[in-house]
Amino acid sequence: MSFREHFRVNPGNKVRVEQMDASAVLGLSVKEPDPTLLEAARHQDMETMAGLQHKLFAENKRALLVILQGIDCAGKDGVVRHCFTGFNPTGCKVWSFKAPTLDEQGHDFLWRIHQRTPGKGEVVVFNRSHYEDVLIARVKELVPEDVWRPRYDTINAFERYLTSGHTEVLKLFLLIDKDQQRRRLQKRVDNPEKNWKFDPADISERERWDDYIKAFDEMLEKCSTEWAPWHIIPANRKWYRNYAVTRILRETLEEMNPKFPAPRDDISGMVIK
Amino acid sequence: MSFREHFRVNPGNKVRVEQMDASAVLGLSVKEPDPTLLEAARHQDMETMAGLQHKLFAENKRALLVILQGIDCAGKDGVVRHCFTGFNPTGCKVWSFKAPTLDEQGHDFLWRIHQRTPGKGEVVVFNRSHYEDVLIARVKELVPEDVWRPRYDTINAFERYLTSGHTEVLKLFLLIDKDQQRRRLQKRVDNPEKNWKFDPADISERERWDDYIKAFDEMLEKCSTEWAPWHIIPANRKWYRNYAVTRILRETLEEMNPKFPAPRDDISGMVIK
Repeated sequence: MSFREHFRVNPGNKVRVEQMDASAVLGLSVKEPDPTLLEAARHQDMETMAGLQHKLFAENKRALLVILQGIDCAGKDGVVRHCFTGFNPTGCKVWSFKAPTLDEQGHDFLWRIHQRTPGKGEVVVFNRSHYEDVLIARVKELVPEDVWRPRYDTINAFERYLTSGHTEVLKLFLLIDKDQQRRRLQKRVDNPEKNWKFDPADISERERWDDYIKAFDEMLEKCSTEWAPWHIIPANRKWYRNYAVTRILRETLEEMNPKFPAPRDDISGMVIK
Repeated sequence: MSFREHFRVNPGNKVRVEQMDASAVLGLSVKEPDPTLLEAARHQDMETMAGLQHKLFAENKRALLVILQGIDCAGKDGVVRHCFTGFNPTGCKVWSFKAPTLDEQGHDFLWRIHQRTPGKGEVVVFNRSHYEDVLIARVKELVPEDVWRPRYDTINAFERYLTSGHTEVLKLFLLIDKDQQRRRLQKRVDNPEKNWKFDPADISERERWDDYIKAFDEMLEKCSTEWAPWHIIPANRKWYRNYAVTRILRETLEEMNPKFPAPRDDISGMVIK
């Protein structure tokens, strides 16, 4: 059993995220792991990944798209900071999708997304994504149900298209519980160095907690496919969240097994003058 | 005297890169430094930079644009890999400019460049840049002199505009000598894991070495301005090149002195429920 399978939503399965333990520690041989040891293991994984990324770039045939979702304060920014710092930025880009601009609103919802999908050899991270169009768009009723509901199928078809080409799609949902969100929002209020992350809208969004949970459940059920399954990462504990995401990334890249292109016969023995 | 000043081309000065020592070790207190110790110091600089980058992003007011130029094999990719891995990719993007696409050719030479300049809070690296339009464009006569010659002034005005706004521009020219280029090209031929970096065009480009030197000299003279001076980095020795670039980056970010935004009065004492 791969490490990743502990987190995978099997296509067709029901999902109730509120019944899951956001503080769980899955896939480890010990029940009470030492965070310091896990962090050391994680740094080894990151070094391994740097080598794999270099080969993926040299190979120039395939790409990895990582999609991060999660409620406010779930740790999306933290995952990027901890798990992707260490990638060579030449072949790694992070795109954070905010409220669509007026220009973007003038197009279909996948228009801005497709512009940011990775080219061959690249690793791209979406911090939020097209999934917002079945999450915030639904919860805040930005569009009527007959507009957002067909998007599940549209998204599945879009991702199938990407994966039928050069792109591997890895979808990670960061799960925290309501009390953990409260603590993190409070820190943004209390710590002056974290004030800049506080958005008053976070308060009104928090009031819609139950609506978001419902939207998450349906998104995770409807869009966990054979070609691009969702993974639910217990994210109350940052050290475990970082460990799990890094390990899943490493496993994914190892399975892709990128290789340096075959040695070139046409230059063999050439002497540069 | 700042570390950076050792490398700066003072505006108005003559430049003859062929008379400079590409193996020089500048700005250190010892004549024969220990590469291992320098590498350790460099990693400390990188940790300091990660903190500064985080503040620059939080501040969300200013940006840093790093422009890398140098002849084939000068080490542009290596500098990105060694000196920018460790930046949080959320706020750091690298753009490698290759031969312009047909679409780009249909526009002025700064059109594709301006689309990639950094937004507030960002660090952006140009691996090659608009300077190719007074380098390869000149050497290979892709356009006549009456087209490329006015570009020096155009570039200076463009960079003045950027720096009068939110952007700091740091220009680094990596200097290697002709024999060092030969050795590095030979490695790309001999090492199967480096074959993918070998481009047969590199051979014909190498034959134009003297023309490139002339174009470099004029670019460095004409476009070293008070607002965006060039820095010439001796780059024959990779460990010194990496040390010098990292130290210059750190110094630049320290002088920018980014700060977390002021604590917000409006949320002081707020209790999250």
